[in-house]
Amino acid sequence: MGRVTRRTPARLLAVRGDGDAPHDRVLLVDGRADTLAVEEPLEIRVDGRAVMVTMRTPGDDFDLALGWLWAEGQISRVADVRTLMHCLDTDERGAPTYNVVEVTAAPGVRIDLTPRATTTTSACGVCGAEDIASIHRLSRFDLDDDDVRLDPALVLDLPRRLRAGQRTFERTGGTHAAGLFTADGELLCLREDVGRHNAVDKVIGWAARAERLPLRGCVLVVSGRAGFELVQKAVMAGIPAMASVSASTSLAVDLARSSGLSLMAFVRDPRLTVYSDPGRLLGLTDAPGRPDQGR
Amino acid sequence: MGRVTRRTPARLLAVRGDGDAPHDRVLLVDGRADTLAVEEPLEIRVDGRAVMVTMRTPGDDFDLALGWLWAEGQISRVADVRTLMHCLDTDERGAPTYNVVEVTAAPGVRIDLTPRATTTTSACGVCGAEDIASIHRLSRFDLDDDDVRLDPALVLDLPRRLRAGQRTFERTGGTHAAGLFTADGELLCLREDVGRHNAVDKVIGWAARAERLPLRGCVLVVSGRAGFELVQKAVMAGIPAMASVSASTSLAVDLARSSGLSLMAFVRDPRLTVYSDPGRLLGLTDAPGRPDQGR
Repeated sequence: MGRVTRRTPARLLAVRGDGDAPHDRVLLVDGRADTLAVEEPLEIRVDGRAVMVTMRTPGDDFDLALGWLWAEGQISRVADVRTLMHCLDTDERGAPTYNVVEVTAAPGVRIDLTPRATTTTSACGVCGAEDIASIHRLSRFDLDDDDVRLDPALVLDLPRRLRAGQRTFERTGGTHAAGLFTADGELLCLREDVGRHNAVDKVIGWAARAERLPLRGCVLVVSGRAGFELVQKAVMAGIPAMASVSASTSLAVDLARSSGLSLMAFVRDPRLTVYSDPGRLLGLTDAPGRPDQGR
Repeated sequence: MGRVTRRTPARLLAVRGDGDAPHDRVLLVDGRADTLAVEEPLEIRVDGRAVMVTMRTPGDDFDLALGWLWAEGQISRVADVRTLMHCLDTDERGAPTYNVVEVTAAPGVRIDLTPRATTTTSACGVCGAEDIASIHRLSRFDLDDDDVRLDPALVLDLPRRLRAGQRTFERTGGTHAAGLFTADGELLCLREDVGRHNAVDKVIGWAARAERLPLRGCVLVVSGRAGFELVQKAVMAGIPAMASVSASTSLAVDLARSSGLSLMAFVRDPRLTVYSDPGRLLGLTDAPGRPDQGR
């Protein structure tokens, strides 16, 4: 545990020259130790059966497992899980790896996860609409009735606040982050991970343990892009607004629109792009209802 | 097909003010169409059984399937695959989605892929060493005997050359890219995708079809980070060097060192960091053998 970063030998090269020949083979070699973000596989088992392997940064593994199960629609309260424990697996030196989390369901609770790769085997039709429909079936929360209002100036400042808490990124440059903020800009939870999905799962798992789900009135801020799977996790956690520093995608925007989530991308002071439910942003008095999907 | 980008209604907000109050609620709202990278699920089936679902940007799906099978150690030549075809699945409007690729193995070839989530169920011990050992077992190529030499000044220029070919990123800001270059800097193949793993799979699938595997003497350049799974794909394709614009991770560096792959990260002119096999870089005459792992 605690293996979030690791020092390793590395060489920093800088190629220099003069103005006319900026790459004139003057190599500056600096042998030095470098700090890497740790990446290790985590296997999640439910009632003895492996259901997921993810490459993650160790730490908050129980939250990762809880948040992932929540986002998959498998649990609706923490009490649905009876036990969470690290399996006593060991590496080649006999040291514990803490790389397997065992989940057992509470009596009467059925966690029925087919391995992820086979979830769509039953029929043809792996299309976005199918995916979105299944998320609507699974989600217990209605985002439409969350009337939180957000100050655009505050939203523009959230990536800076997130960045201020990214301690592992500061040392490694190698981790993504997810942060949960109130509409007043208070940071509730921040998690970093080599996998951006894991960072969001860890935040949702934290919220599940704190019995704060659904996360009404909150904004999820992510350090990278807002793809389909991240928006899916936000919808499943009842989060009404999401802000990403980078781009979104077609299917993510479709899901946000059909779910009533306010999706903001390219949030880079002083600009941001809103794709769905702009009515939650203060000052946008001319905001219409949901725009056509315009496919 | 051809659904790489999609136009969609969006609103661009800019918050303005004067010097003392830079966020003084002066909203500039620009309702406009925005271009998104398309993200849709692709299911890969082998001999009728679903083995993988990935969220990808449509296009080059057969290469994606081929490259993924190659990187998983399931095929060692294109002829191991008898047919590749899009399943005639349709969406809710009856239009083909092209979101399922059916693979059939050649007579006598056994593609034995358990769904990904269950690949590690057989025992405890999901540790990095186990993963790395299994990749060494699977890989058919020895990178140690690839004596390609690389000019650091050229390597520093490769991200710029990659960026120049990222046409979808140019329009959407939402895709990653992988590019395969010769040691002379010639671009052999560039692919973009919302998933960085898919971009690499598509490059490897292209190389498999072109019967260019192993990719001796080549450099794989990726627009993002170099995590374990990307280094794994490079090793499986026989690529001796990899350059990433962003960070690497602990397990990726371990795998590169034990495989003889020259791993360069933070490749940002005029600097780069080398983690393994620096002897392939010209001008580094003092380069020792592989450094200790220093865990």
